[in-house]
Amino acid sequence: MKAFFNGQFVPIAEARVSVLDRGFLYGDGLFETIRIAGGRPFRWAAHLERMARTAGCLGIRIPFEPQLLREAAVELARVNGVSAGVVRLVVSRGQGPRGYSALAADSPTLVMTTHLPAVPAPGENECWRLVTSPLRILEADVLTAHKHCNRLLQVLARSEAERRGVDEALLLNSRGEVAEASSGNVFWTDEAGLVTPALETGILPGITRSVVLELGRGMGWRVREVRCPLEDARSCAGWFETSSGRGLVPVTEIDGEAVRPDRRVALLRAALEQTVAQECGVGVAVDRLEAGSDSARV
Amino acid sequence: MKAFFNGQFVPIAEARVSVLDRGFLYGDGLFETIRIAGGRPFRWAAHLERMARTAGCLGIRIPFEPQLLREAAVELARVNGVSAGVVRLVVSRGQGPRGYSALAADSPTLVMTTHLPAVPAPGENECWRLVTSPLRILEADVLTAHKHCNRLLQVLARSEAERRGVDEALLLNSRGEVAEASSGNVFWTDEAGLVTPALETGILPGITRSVVLELGRGMGWRVREVRCPLEDARSCAGWFETSSGRGLVPVTEIDGEAVRPDRRVALLRAALEQTVAQECGVGVAVDRLEAGSDSARV
Repeated sequence: MKAFFNGQFVPIAEARVSVLDRGFLYGDGLFETIRIAGGRPFRWAAHLERMARTAGCLGIRIPFEPQLLREAAVELARVNGVSAGVVRLVVSRGQGPRGYSALAADSPTLVMTTHLPAVPAPGENECWRLVTSPLRILEADVLTAHKHCNRLLQVLARSEAERRGVDEALLLNSRGEVAEASSGNVFWTDEAGLVTPALETGILPGITRSVVLELGRGMGWRVREVRCPLEDARSCAGWFETSSGRGLVPVTEIDGEAVRPDRRVALLRAALEQTVAQECGVGVAVDRLEAGSDSARV
Repeated sequence: MKAFFNGQFVPIAEARVSVLDRGFLYGDGLFETIRIAGGRPFRWAAHLERMARTAGCLGIRIPFEPQLLREAAVELARVNGVSAGVVRLVVSRGQGPRGYSALAADSPTLVMTTHLPAVPAPGENECWRLVTSPLRILEADVLTAHKHCNRLLQVLARSEAERRGVDEALLLNSRGEVAEASSGNVFWTDEAGLVTPALETGILPGITRSVVLELGRGMGWRVREVRCPLEDARSCAGWFETSSGRGLVPVTEIDGEAVRPDRRVALLRAALEQTVAQECGVGVAVDRLEAGSDSARV
């Protein structure tokens, strides 16, 4: 297994950063998790645009161009034999003097690794059970909309959900509005169509979320982004979670109460998988597509 | 220069963690910065107690006993020739599978490094100028009282202060109350005595803060921990910042307005330095004190 590490392909065991790297010390970095299908990244440009926004907010320089990174991601997936999975791209601010000041730190660390999809163990749910976390997303926090490396809130929420015997934590914001899950965005359905928390609730603007919104609109459904208290949403049908790592995962239970299924969820999941397969050219040899088509590069 | 890295003394260049370490990926760890004087740590027990509380909150196992770590810190300071400076102790959750779940991650990484005190450059202020940060501490956040490795708020606040040409950022909480600086606690004075933000404002309970509170009381001054809006505190005299790395640093300016000096600040600073020197046995050979006295071990 190899990693793309500061411009080189190295064995993963050799991809090591100094204990003085600010990523390790302060979570002073950002990341993207990008789906790989047919050996190619899905919605690369959208991920890189989000990354650039976060890098701008944090003042971290991305040390390689998006196109070079895309070629490296495809090559990494190839050498690691990952035709379906994810690539994780992490950029930290790198090393600097002791302390929070970032003035003398301008040697960012960039690493990409590939990961196989998390396949449910035999007997494990392919649907997820959620519990509401007592931890709250603070929607006033300027960092909430960015995919940075300060993830203790998500780590603690997820750990507590697992202690309570379920799969995932549902996070509300400080106003009690439904925001997101620890590792993805959430949706539900009502008579009118598809519903998901608005960006103003303090969520991360997920790439898969945006694709699902496109697909829902394409199906002619009414699609709403809302600020909604949990008590108004919990009894709705068709809850699901979206993420680049897992696609669309139906939610079967929230806080011990069964979620009523909605057949539109299966339609959306199929449409998402079809979109991924089409855009990534699943079934088309990577060599041919990469060499022959500019459209594969966005 | 050496580091104490997972139980071994290694050259600092060899103290490297995997890019899959959750410290690097998510800031999933904790740290302490402990003052070294006369080659010995100041208030070791207080730092280790705070670390244990944070480790309990995060569910991270500290892989060595406090006494072994203290001996390693003294040895590290000795081999690195640091008789006055700081030791930084970092513990991350270590490596685990991809994702926020910490279930399969139980190989924590522990590292200690030593650092010389930041000596002001010629012409540089030994006093600090502060600006109020537009970023806010969210006092409802369960993590605010813990010295964890999610430090982007502090990094961003400090960066912005430096862009504005001053030394340090003053952070308010979401209610507009004075909380702390990016890298230390703050105090000011009034006719009655010494004032500092209460723990409930969302601050980190600093070790140097607690020593200064002891010293102020020992001097017979009235000492108050308060929830106080910035507008009520800004015009007060005798502002200063405390941290393990720098001790007590007078603040000369806040948001461009000069802070009136108070002679009690110099008294406190001298008392702090005297306490550090006494407790650490400055001037007494490390070998003799470490071998002969149990009191040196707390």
